[in-house]
Amino acid sequence: MDAAGALRDIGEPEIDGAFLASGGVERVREALQRGALPVVDAEGLRIGAPIARPGKIVCIGLNYRDHAAESGAEVPAEPVVFMKASNTMVGPYDDVLIPKGSVKTDWEVELAVVIGKEARYLGSREEALGVIAGYAVANDVSEREFQLERGGQWDKGKSCETFNPLGPWLVTPDEVGDPQDLPLRLWVNGEPRQDGTTKDMIFDVAEVVRYLSRFMVLEPGDVINTGTPAGVAMGMPGQPYLRAGDVVELEIGGLGRQRQKVGQA
Amino acid sequence: MDAAGALRDIGEPEIDGAFLASGGVERVREALQRGALPVVDAEGLRIGAPIARPGKIVCIGLNYRDHAAESGAEVPAEPVVFMKASNTMVGPYDDVLIPKGSVKTDWEVELAVVIGKEARYLGSREEALGVIAGYAVANDVSEREFQLERGGQWDKGKSCETFNPLGPWLVTPDEVGDPQDLPLRLWVNGEPRQDGTTKDMIFDVAEVVRYLSRFMVLEPGDVINTGTPAGVAMGMPGQPYLRAGDVVELEIGGLGRQRQKVGQA
Repeated sequence: MDAAGALRDIGEPEIDGAFLASGGVERVREALQRGALPVVDAEGLRIGAPIARPGKIVCIGLNYRDHAAESGAEVPAEPVVFMKASNTMVGPYDDVLIPKGSVKTDWEVELAVVIGKEARYLGSREEALGVIAGYAVANDVSEREFQLERGGQWDKGKSCETFNPLGPWLVTPDEVGDPQDLPLRLWVNGEPRQDGTTKDMIFDVAEVVRYLSRFMVLEPGDVINTGTPAGVAMGMPGQPYLRAGDVVELEIGGLGRQRQKVGQA
Repeated sequence: MDAAGALRDIGEPEIDGAFLASGGVERVREALQRGALPVVDAEGLRIGAPIARPGKIVCIGLNYRDHAAESGAEVPAEPVVFMKASNTMVGPYDDVLIPKGSVKTDWEVELAVVIGKEARYLGSREEALGVIAGYAVANDVSEREFQLERGGQWDKGKSCETFNPLGPWLVTPDEVGDPQDLPLRLWVNGEPRQDGTTKDMIFDVAEVVRYLSRFMVLEPGDVINTGTPAGVAMGMPGQPYLRAGDVVELEIGGLGRQRQKVGQA
C-alpha cells in the first residue's frame, strides 16, 4: 500500500527472505517513486501475510510488566524466548481456528519485527536496529491449556494452525519512527480487551534483537513477536476464551488493523 | 547411497519437502532399479544433511526414562515438546561450534523422523506411521546454561548455529524395519558416552507423530528429534561438557554414523 492508501502491485514474486536480502525494499521504493507500480483493485482479494515463509518465528514471553503480573509470573531478568512453527502464519483477515479439543484459545496483540539481514552476535543496539527490515501487527494466538497444563514447554500451545495472523502491512523503520512509542489495541466482538503501548516493554526491540542474536542466527524473513501487554483472556475475570463465531480486531499505531473471525478446526 | 555402499547422483535439485511431497522417493527408487543413477566419487565432497530446509524441527524432551532420571526430571505424563530453529541443521561431518559465552555445550544422540506428507489430527498409530518419509541420526546439541538457567523456556539453548547435525542418510521405513528396535551410541574423543536403544522410548515414534499432529500441522520435510537416552554431559560425574578440539561420534543401527569436530564460534 502506498502513502495515499492505494494498493499497488510491486512486481515481485514474493516478499520473503530472498526479497529482503537482495535489496527488495529499495527496488520497490525506487519503482514507486518513478510511478512504475500499478494500482491494484483490492476488492475481493485475499490479503496474505506481508512476509512469506519465515524461516522461524521467535517469540518473547512476559515482555510487559502488566502481562507478567496478570499471568502470575515474575518480571523476567532476561528475555524469555520460545518459538512458534512458522506454518502458523496466516493473513490479517484470515479465520483463526480453535484447535480440536481446545477450551482455552486466547489472543495476544504484539509488535512483530521482521529481520532483513543475517545476524549473529550483534555487538550493540545500533547494530541490532540495523538488521530490522520492518514492523507489523501480529496476533500471537495461544492455547493456554496446551501451553501451560500439558507438561513441559510453551511451544505446544503456540503452534496450532492459523495461530499467527500477521499484517496487513510490513512497515519500514523510517516510516515507523520510534518503535517504543506505538499504541497496541485489541477488541473481541467490539469489546476492548487490550490497550497498551510499546513504551512498556521490559526488553525493547533493540535489546530483543541483540539478545536473540547471541543464541541463534537471525535470517532475512525471520519474524520476532515481541510480547503482549495485559488484557488476555487468561488474565481476565471469568477467563472469556475465544469461541467459534467471535470476531477479534487488533491494531498498532501506524501498522494497520487486523480482523479475524474465529472458527473451529 | 545404494545398498552396496556406493554414493549415487539422484538427479534431483534437492531432497526437501517438495521432493518428498511429489513422490521423489519413488522416482529415485525406480531410477535406481533401472540403473539410471550414476555413481559419484565421494572423495573430497562435503556431505550435507539428507533433508534441505526443514520447515520446522520439533523435539521431544525427556523421552527415555534413564535420561529423565539423569536430568533430575520426572517421567513425563505426555510428550514434552519444544522446537529448534531449523537453520541449526548441518551435515553429519560438519563442525559443531561452541557458542560464544557457552560453558555447557552438550551432546544428544537421537532418532530423527522426517515427515513425508502433510498431517493434522491423525487418528491412529497406523496413520502416523504412514506420514513418515524416513529416519536419520540427529545430534540434538544443547547448551544447558542457556536451556535451563537463563529464564523461561528451553528453545534458547537449542537453536545455536550448527546445533543439529543430521544424517548421513535418510533411510526409508521399509529399510529401517522396526523403529523401536534400534541401538543408539555416542562417543566423545573415543570414550563411550551414550549406549541406548529406541526400545526404551517412553512415547514411541507412532505416538509422538500422532500426538504432535494434534498441536501443529506437520509438513513434508519437517524433522522430529525423538529424544535422547542417558549419558549426556549434564548427567555425568564432573559434567564433562564439550570443548573446542573434542570429537563427537554417534550412530544408530542401520542409519549410519556421524563425526563432528568441536570448534569455537
